[in-house]
Amino acid sequence: MIGVGVVGYGYWGPNLARAVSETDTCAIAAIADASDAALQRAHKRHPTARLLSDWRDLVADLRVDAVMVATPVSTHFDIALAALQNGKHVLVEKPIAESSVQASILVEEAARRGLTLMVDHTFVYTGAVQSIHDMIASGSIGDVYYYDSTRINLGLFQRDVNVLWDLAVHDLAILDFILPAQPVAVSASGAGHVPGSPENMAQLTIFFAGGAIGHLNVNWLAPVKIRQTLIGGSRRMIVYDDLQASEKVKVYDRGINLADDAQNIQKLMVSYRMGDMWAPQISVKEALLTETEHFIQCINSKERPATDGGSGLRVVEMLEAASRSMKQRGQPVDLVKLRRVS
Amino acid sequence: MIGVGVVGYGYWGPNLARAVSETDTCAIAAIADASDAALQRAHKRHPTARLLSDWRDLVADLRVDAVMVATPVSTHFDIALAALQNGKHVLVEKPIAESSVQASILVEEAARRGLTLMVDHTFVYTGAVQSIHDMIASGSIGDVYYYDSTRINLGLFQRDVNVLWDLAVHDLAILDFILPAQPVAVSASGAGHVPGSPENMAQLTIFFAGGAIGHLNVNWLAPVKIRQTLIGGSRRMIVYDDLQASEKVKVYDRGINLADDAQNIQKLMVSYRMGDMWAPQISVKEALLTETEHFIQCINSKERPATDGGSGLRVVEMLEAASRSMKQRGQPVDLVKLRRVS
Amino acid sequence: MIGVGVVGYGYWGPNLARAVSETDTCAIAAIADASDAALQRAHKRHPTARLLSDWRDLVADLRVDAVMVATPVSTHFDIALAALQNGKHVLVEKPIAESSVQASILVEEAARRGLTLMVDHTFVYTGAVQSIHDMIASGSIGDVYYYDSTRINLGLFQRDVNVLWDLAVHDLAILDFILPAQPVAVSASGAGHVPGSPENMAQLTIFFAGGAIGHLNVNWLAPVKIRQTLIGGSRRMIVYDDLQASEKVKVYDRGINLADDAQNIQKLMVSYRMGDMWAPQISVKEALLTETEHFIQCINSKERPATDGGSGLRVVEMLEAASRSMKQRGQPVDLVKLRRVS
Amino acid sequence: MIGVGVVGYGYWGPNLARAVSETDTCAIAAIADASDAALQRAHKRHPTARLLSDWRDLVADLRVDAVMVATPVSTHFDIALAALQNGKHVLVEKPIAESSVQASILVEEAARRGLTLMVDHTFVYTGAVQSIHDMIASGSIGDVYYYDSTRINLGLFQRDVNVLWDLAVHDLAILDFILPAQPVAVSASGAGHVPGSPENMAQLTIFFAGGAIGHLNVNWLAPVKIRQTLIGGSRRMIVYDDLQASEKVKVYDRGINLADDAQNIQKLMVSYRMGDMWAPQISVKEALLTETEHFIQCINSKERPATDGGSGLRVVEMLEAASRSMKQRGQPVDLVKLRRVS
Repeated sequence: MIGVGVVGYGYWGPNLARAVSETDTCAIAAIADASDAALQRAHKRHPTARLLSDWRDLVADLRVDAVMVATPVSTHFDIALAALQNGKHVLVEKPIAESSVQASILVEEAARRGLTLMVDHTFVYTGAVQSIHDMIASGSIGDVYYYDSTRINLGLFQRDVNVLWDLAVHDLAILDFILPAQPVAVSASGAGHVPGSPENMAQLTIFFAGGAIGHLNVNWLAPVKIRQTLIGGSRRMIVYDDLQASEKVKVYDRGINLADDAQNIQKLMVSYRMGDMWAPQISVKEALLTETEHFIQCINSKERPATDGGSGLRVVEMLEAASRSMKQRGQPVDLVKLRRVS
Repeated sequence: MIGVGVVGYGYWGPNLARAVSETDTCAIAAIADASDAALQRAHKRHPTARLLSDWRDLVADLRVDAVMVATPVSTHFDIALAALQNGKHVLVEKPIAESSVQASILVEEAARRGLTLMVDHTFVYTGAVQSIHDMIASGSIGDVYYYDSTRINLGLFQRDVNVLWDLAVHDLAILDFILPAQPVAVSASGAGHVPGSPENMAQLTIFFAGGAIGHLNVNWLAPVKIRQTLIGGSRRMIVYDDLQASEKVKVYDRGINLADDAQNIQKLMVSYRMGDMWAPQISVKEALLTETEHFIQCINSKERPATDGGSGLRVVEMLEAASRSMKQRGQPVDLVKLRRVS
Repeated sequence: MIGVGVVGYGYWGPNLARAVSETDTCAIAAIADASDAALQRAHKRHPTARLLSDWRDLVADLRVDAVMVATPVSTHFDIALAALQNGKHVLVEKPIAESSVQASILVEEAARRGLTLMVDHTFVYTGAVQSIHDMIASGSIGDVYYYDSTRINLGLFQRDVNVLWDLAVHDLAILDFILPAQPVAVSASGAGHVPGSPENMAQLTIFFAGGAIGHLNVNWLAPVKIRQTLIGGSRRMIVYDDLQASEKVKVYDRGINLADDAQNIQKLMVSYRMGDMWAPQISVKEALLTETEHFIQCINSKERPATDGGSGLRVVEMLEAASRSMKQRGQPVDLVKLRRVS
Repeated sequence: MIGVGVVGYGYWGPNLARAVSETDTCAIAAIADASDAALQRAHKRHPTARLLSDWRDLVADLRVDAVMVATPVSTHFDIALAALQNGKHVLVEKPIAESSVQASILVEEAARRGLTLMVDHTFVYTGAVQSIHDMIASGSIGDVYYYDSTRINLGLFQRDVNVLWDLAVHDLAILDFILPAQPVAVSASGAGHVPGSPENMAQLTIFFAGGAIGHLNVNWLAPVKIRQTLIGGSRRMIVYDDLQASEKVKVYDRGINLADDAQNIQKLMVSYRMGDMWAPQISVKEALLTETEHFIQCINSKERPATDGGSGLRVVEMLEAASRSMKQRGQPVDLVKLRRVS
């Protein structure tokens, strides 16, 4: 039985703690939060957990084998690093850190100590994304042409990070999981409507080696909530709507057929394929439970998590590059050069 | 009674001809198309119209007071210019021409001759866009923060122009009509999936003077058809879904309230306003009828069309700039400099 | 080439006339309407058709081989009977007549003279209903448990017939086409909200031999338009939404599985099957064209129409029985007895 | 602080217990369930509650001031009666009892002892139904013409009661709350598709004094989940879709206008009003919390609950009458006579 300590009992921490308490292979050992009110709420739900106002006490606690970090992004690095240095396995809320430099250090520290470092890219553990991953991996989608996602709603404005770090991070995590191709460049544009605050809406294009393209549209200031992703492939196309109660993933046997005319490449004909639509039954198991079980199993078996520190690092690299592009009205940023430099 | 000649009786021409025949103030005088089959179809619907296989005969026909051009984009300039030079008023399908240079020549020719030159930016004449225009003009939306549009479907791939010229043109026309602000720069990215063909999907950002931003997502290779536009303002927000049979335009009393703290600008608080939604009853009159009547009335009264040659020119300038940006992975293109140069 | 005469050029007649003009095997010979304005509109669209203000002249016209009747229900019988007596084939708008007595006389008259008598149950000729018919016929739905349809909208109130005769008639026609089972009884209830007018909303239950049940909900006074039908079967279930632009027909691999426990019938276990959903690509050919071609082919080949006079009669029998039940707050009416009596 | 005992910790009991624990004015004192597994689950969530395997011990427990009954319907009467006889206030899950005779006894017992008896008609406490109630009460809907509800989904089949008792009960409870008119008769029809089991789909019509009509369509064997209610009034109409995340309640300024022609009542003209739609912002507070607070407040203040025993009784009367009608294929059952007899 793995003892888990949760740092941060604000918005997301209670969900992590609940998932731990519903998983057989682990249990809540301690909860840390600087706020007394948060600790009182924690006590009502987890009466046997040790309550701490300083996370430093939690990462040093002997009953804690693994630490889950659900604090503001700016504190991820310090807490995760200290936890690793105390020999704890670590799960960090997304994004894994404020910068790729920080993320790299965490990855190295975990590797050196043989500890499990995982980032909480929750969507990767949903039945919907798992089924999309499997369809792409099996070849049933064909070559992936594009991933086009709209992730918008009203609120919650954040003061310290722009909307890319809050919303686009989900799509970058999904892309890192489902697409084998390497991202090579990004272009982003956006705008802020609150004086002195970061951009609250943005559009991000990611260019992949091989020609696939990712388009992300994120917005904190939209009148309605939309979570819709289209994936176009040479064989089939997918519409993934996370807000649908059922049929979240629809697969369309639609697309174009190219009839080469060997004699005259100029006369390449495009015809359309309008076939059936199909909505596979997908697992409705809660993502956070799947993820928690996966974390514990990786700790026990030493296997590599689906969303390990490396994926956390790659996502942060793209967020950094996108933020830089956004400052220059879409000026493209080359990810390959960046990586070479670093 | 204005005699109208229609050039091009393929996909769009029949719609224009029908609209003319349903308008009291004008009548079909002649129809030109190089295809015999097209002319036969024209004859069944318009048995009294003169049928011509060469548009040159139509623009010279004395019974023709006004010419409607519904041919491929690459021919717009020659036909429209010849019609103007023959003293005819002209309505050109969108986009008005292949280049801003061509569009400028048409605008100047019409001005010099005192003829009406209008571009068929059809959406401008829908009840939905008219009501959005009026809400913005009346101040009920407040400052416009953004216009974010998704216009995607499967087909029809075009060989000669990229998807921006086919689909984004609609949104650029709407923006030109509803937004008083001046566009200052664009960034676009896209991809083509048919070897040797232009880009079939693209994302376009338009930066406006004053901070408003336009985001357009267009795609010929999407499994589903979407026509959805969000408009965010400081007072209210709009969702315009052109595929809805009713309630195409929904107005949300939602947004953010900024509570300045005079003493500490850093502590600017953002709160959310989640008020009612309201769907105004909008006119269901067919846009093409409204547009045709407007064209005839502008001819008769010498008033300036809502979508005059100038709006056609501005839209083509943005398409040119966007296509250039798209070739360079989002590299921003400054519209103000462009205009100064030209 | 069959010469067709259209009687009634109000709401539906123009659609029939257009369908005729778009079908190769027939042509409009004459159009009759008592209204001059209607005849003028007819002339614009069908300049070569003979125009008549009295339908008696049309049914006697030698150029007319077949008559399409699109007049108020109360006149269907007289016009159709006269047309048959003049040796014309007849297509009558739904419902075929005001009463089952009238419908029977038409059926007999057509049979005696060897003429084609068809009722315009348009929905039967849609790609959606054809595909549902085929799925049921092939056994892929299993035993049909129920047909549950909601067909509501605002307007158009009629003075002479209640809402069942205007809206439920569509579902009764579909049921007559897709279900092999015999209806045995009906129960209907409804209400009228306009003093002195017939019921504007109603609910109708049809009991079929073998246990299937039909539930129809029709309403002229609904704020929104709904055209949604659920069909439950032992193997699969269907949702048919006629207002969807695509995926009108969705097939669900869902239902219940019964695990008999031979020893204890009381312990019959019900388990649920939640499988995939599948939307077959269906024909998008206009129903009215399919129907017109079918009518002409039946005339030429003497084959029996899918919606012959007999189906028109059966539908009217159910409408009569339902109207009677509705007068008595749902008191069931036995259709088998009715048929025996008549 | 009111001590609450919850009887039954299966599907619904945990929700009631949670609501109690989140309400300041009461606390969980005891939980009873015959199943050990259920009690273990209860212990994890409510570690300080007394756990009992026999409900008789709970209703006798001195720390318990009020009892919430969440057991199968067939046990409601015995448990609720025993609780009242032990001087406890009682909240019973819907329906309040198996028969109107039982319900009457509970109502009388509570009245005689001056105890609060409330039925858990949860929907009455939602923001949506509260706002609909208020709109009707304020006259903004005008005369209510009809209430038309579709409440269908797949599962959960019950062995002991037909689908009316499981699903229609919600609409009957809502109707009892929002409509001042008296129900006078019902007609119901339905069918069962599992041999030996009660009806799993049904249609129910309720006739109200004054002409309003209620139409309920309920089904356990539908491929999709629908929770949609239309309410038609003389001034406005409502669409209430409980599955929408936002805009659950939409108000349409639509309907008919009657232009009396004093001289000729036969020529009463109907015109249509197609005005705006409006979605009021409604409270998103969880219904169960509102309900629990209301229960405690009624206990403390002796005020009459919005869903008192009387409403529980009236709903059961309608369920009994509807079940009887359903056995006779829609034969109407007169509720006024029934009441006079009893």
